[in-house]
Amino acid sequence: MKRQVGAGTTGKFTVGLIQMSLGRDVNSNLKKAVSLVEKAAKDGAEVVCLPELFRSQYFCQTEDIRNFDLAETIPGPSTAAISNVAKKRKIAVVVPLFEKRAMGVYHNSLAVVDSDGEIAGVYRKMHIPDDPAFYEKYYFTPGDLGFKTFRTAYADIGTLICWDQWYPEAARITALKGAAILFYPTAIGWHPHEKAEHGKAQLDSWQTIQRGHAVANGVYVAAVNRIGLEKLSPENPGIEFWGHSFISDPQGQIIAQASADKEEIIVAEVDLDRIEYIRQNWPFLRDRRIDAYDGIKERFIER
Amino acid sequence: MKRQVGAGTTGKFTVGLIQMSLGRDVNSNLKKAVSLVEKAAKDGAEVVCLPELFRSQYFCQTEDIRNFDLAETIPGPSTAAISNVAKKRKIAVVVPLFEKRAMGVYHNSLAVVDSDGEIAGVYRKMHIPDDPAFYEKYYFTPGDLGFKTFRTAYADIGTLICWDQWYPEAARITALKGAAILFYPTAIGWHPHEKAEHGKAQLDSWQTIQRGHAVANGVYVAAVNRIGLEKLSPENPGIEFWGHSFISDPQGQIIAQASADKEEIIVAEVDLDRIEYIRQNWPFLRDRRIDAYDGIKERFIER
Repeated sequence: MKRQVGAGTTGKFTVGLIQMSLGRDVNSNLKKAVSLVEKAAKDGAEVVCLPELFRSQYFCQTEDIRNFDLAETIPGPSTAAISNVAKKRKIAVVVPLFEKRAMGVYHNSLAVVDSDGEIAGVYRKMHIPDDPAFYEKYYFTPGDLGFKTFRTAYADIGTLICWDQWYPEAARITALKGAAILFYPTAIGWHPHEKAEHGKAQLDSWQTIQRGHAVANGVYVAAVNRIGLEKLSPENPGIEFWGHSFISDPQGQIIAQASADKEEIIVAEVDLDRIEYIRQNWPFLRDRRIDAYDGIKERFIER
Repeated sequence: MKRQVGAGTTGKFTVGLIQMSLGRDVNSNLKKAVSLVEKAAKDGAEVVCLPELFRSQYFCQTEDIRNFDLAETIPGPSTAAISNVAKKRKIAVVVPLFEKRAMGVYHNSLAVVDSDGEIAGVYRKMHIPDDPAFYEKYYFTPGDLGFKTFRTAYADIGTLICWDQWYPEAARITALKGAAILFYPTAIGWHPHEKAEHGKAQLDSWQTIQRGHAVANGVYVAAVNRIGLEKLSPENPGIEFWGHSFISDPQGQIIAQASADKEEIIVAEVDLDRIEYIRQNWPFLRDRRIDAYDGIKERFIER
């Protein structure tokens, strides 16, 4: 049965978040991902999400032209492998990957594979960061598909990717398109030299803003991160990916959370009745001043 | 010296948040507010904020036509009394009040009084709630001045009011107008029958979303709430206003917080260098996709 956030629909479905480490061999990573997706399905998950760019280590730590060879098409080998397990287990899967769209046009994307093994659609990361060791603007063309919600066999789901999680506009528009849950496949971690001083506050800010999106929009939010220290070369300080994959309910309460450093599958129930209950009790969507939001489209507003 | 969030400006200023109880006599309330503002100034505050509708108890618990008599003009008796202390102590004050604009046109407003005693400007609450015991749509015409930042002697400050705090759009546009801090004068509390079951989660959601605005926009956020159980009549269950006035830094960290039930003045320093530091380290404003935010202006987006 299709379940959606539109009027008159109720129901529950189970999500599974795959928190994993990634090694140097892209085929081993895919094999492990397939195995974990299968395990999540056995644990009862109906909609599963993998971490951002799960085929490889986080190559954006450096700008190296050879890394473009990691990109693949949609459909391609990753979606093919995941489609098999999705169809076999009758689950939907969010498959984040480095997309080769055309010669010289690459995106940080995800494909949503539905429970029949078909690709329900593609989202391309809209907000592209560029920070020391996160040189994404070198690799990824900004997304041109806008913010998207996909209809799967179990629910209408919204998908965003990592840096998008800092933008309330992205969460809002995706939620307005009827998503019951916003998935944020992610690759975020600590710079080892910063962790002691700033690590706790950074992790807290990251959770807080995403829980804020849940509250503002009355939706579930699921962040799916990788784990492990990835040092691309001996002289590279590396990034310690901080795990802490979590799911928040529509009131901003965390209902399941993973560790900082272990491979784990988080399974939690999404209840459309809970969305309706929260939205009726806190009717924020009713009172939006859509006549007064033009300023959102400005870069900065000088006096 | 004028200090602003525009390029090339640095500096610090001190804010004072007045958490207070309000009684049945509007003149006593004003007298107490003046006294607390004066005390905040003595404690070093340069920009002071009073709670929402501080002249009276929270009359919106019922729909009673006699309550329109509580409204006053801007300028009027409240701004006159606060202007005196503002000029004397050379401080800016955010003065929230029930504004009588014209016969039959009333707003939930605030005046910003600058350190020379002059009114720097007016903001009218844009998002108007209507919930059991918060019947604001009966009393208040929605604001028509848009989202605003005011230049005061100490800083450019943004002001919003209570229900506005649940709307990321309001925080974003106000921040884009150059605010160093967003003030949220507030009147929020527990329904006594809900407190045991839902009270903790409600308070947490309220803090979380506002801390999220701080993170998203790289601004300080200050919420200023009243305290006390206000029962308007013996048969009325009343509202227990939950205090917890707080100030968050631009990373979403709470740097000062009041109790649930005591009159307190919270004093904290706002450091423009800290805003710059956070915005340089987390350059969210750089990467906004202003070309892709049209959906914000939709009520809901059907498939």
